[in-house]
Amino acid sequence: MTAPVPEPKEERLARQVRFLVEVDRLKEVLRRNYLADGSRVETTAEHSWHAALMALVLAEYAEAPVDRDKVVAMMLVHDIVEVDAGDTFLYDREGQRDKAAREARAADRLFGLLPPDQGRELRALWEEFEAGETPEARFAKSLDRFAPLTLNVASGGRAWLEHGVRREDVLRANRHTALGSQALWAYMRALVDEAHARGYLGD
Amino acid sequence: MTAPVPEPKEERLARQVRFLVEVDRLKEVLRRNYLADGSRVETTAEHSWHAALMALVLAEYAEAPVDRDKVVAMMLVHDIVEVDAGDTFLYDREGQRDKAAREARAADRLFGLLPPDQGRELRALWEEFEAGETPEARFAKSLDRFAPLTLNVASGGRAWLEHGVRREDVLRANRHTALGSQALWAYMRALVDEAHARGYLGD
Repeated sequence: MTAPVPEPKEERLARQVRFLVEVDRLKEVLRRNYLADGSRVETTAEHSWHAALMALVLAEYAEAPVDRDKVVAMMLVHDIVEVDAGDTFLYDREGQRDKAAREARAADRLFGLLPPDQGRELRALWEEFEAGETPEARFAKSLDRFAPLTLNVASGGRAWLEHGVRREDVLRANRHTALGSQALWAYMRALVDEAHARGYLGD
Repeated sequence: MTAPVPEPKEERLARQVRFLVEVDRLKEVLRRNYLADGSRVETTAEHSWHAALMALVLAEYAEAPVDRDKVVAMMLVHDIVEVDAGDTFLYDREGQRDKAAREARAADRLFGLLPPDQGRELRALWEEFEAGETPEARFAKSLDRFAPLTLNVASGGRAWLEHGVRREDVLRANRHTALGSQALWAYMRALVDEAHARGYLGD
């Protein structure tokens, strides 16, 4: 048996840059929800920044103690697979069906661009998020819902009105937020009630 | 003397959300550099995500050992002041002149929206970045230059051609990258040579 051949350093950096330039396309994936001012929908890259910043600011509300830095890193990579798989609207039942398979293929390709050690590290973060079983993943999933809901209310419910979303759809689709944070879920329920009272959500 | 009155918990979360919704406007600040595919310029929120991801992936190239998580957090907040102060193009000498004063006023207002303990924490991160004296800040500044340069080359030098940027302007404006990372600076110089050879940069 021979020792594994070390990767030349320049090739390592070249792979890392290839990955970073490839995932630049996350700036072109459009989500359904609007910016707070309602001027346009946000890109997944913008959402990823906002959600990571939320992890930094809101970590104290996690249901179980979390490694805040790990949640931040998770938010940075949680949607990278959308470069290949696109964004699937929470209320699109058809798209939700094959979402997992599409995203697993995307993860193979995208994280595979990195040097193996880093590909494994970032993919593990994404898989942990997807599985939603650790305190960090549960809280990350709460933030992933908290972010668009807050923007939907701020923008006058524009995305909800366009897609005819009902109050009970929002409550059902977001209820697992409570697993990651009872405090954020309570805040979201109050926002939903307010949005419903204002006519942003149907019955 | 009386003990300080503890902030009601709901008021604390309300302040945090006010800050998070306010900085949503970073998604509307346009930078000068284009996406890798040249289709449009990027927003500062998108740049902040990309730079934070770069901190995660490229930390091994920092000139002095860095706390990677701290660099990631720094990238998330390093441009928040642009919500009020706008983006100042690196090669705009006029705008660079009063940039510091405009950004300090923005920091007062924006970080002031947060509960005081968090306002102080995030502002300190931003000030550390601006001062550029710690290993983390030096490396963060390197990434802040590495990101647009990589995209400029990938997009066929579009921003440089539009603004008539010369090879020596790029080398002068970016040379402090070496303080944070000799390795990234060497890579950037090779990219600049390539860009110059292809006619993306003038003499």
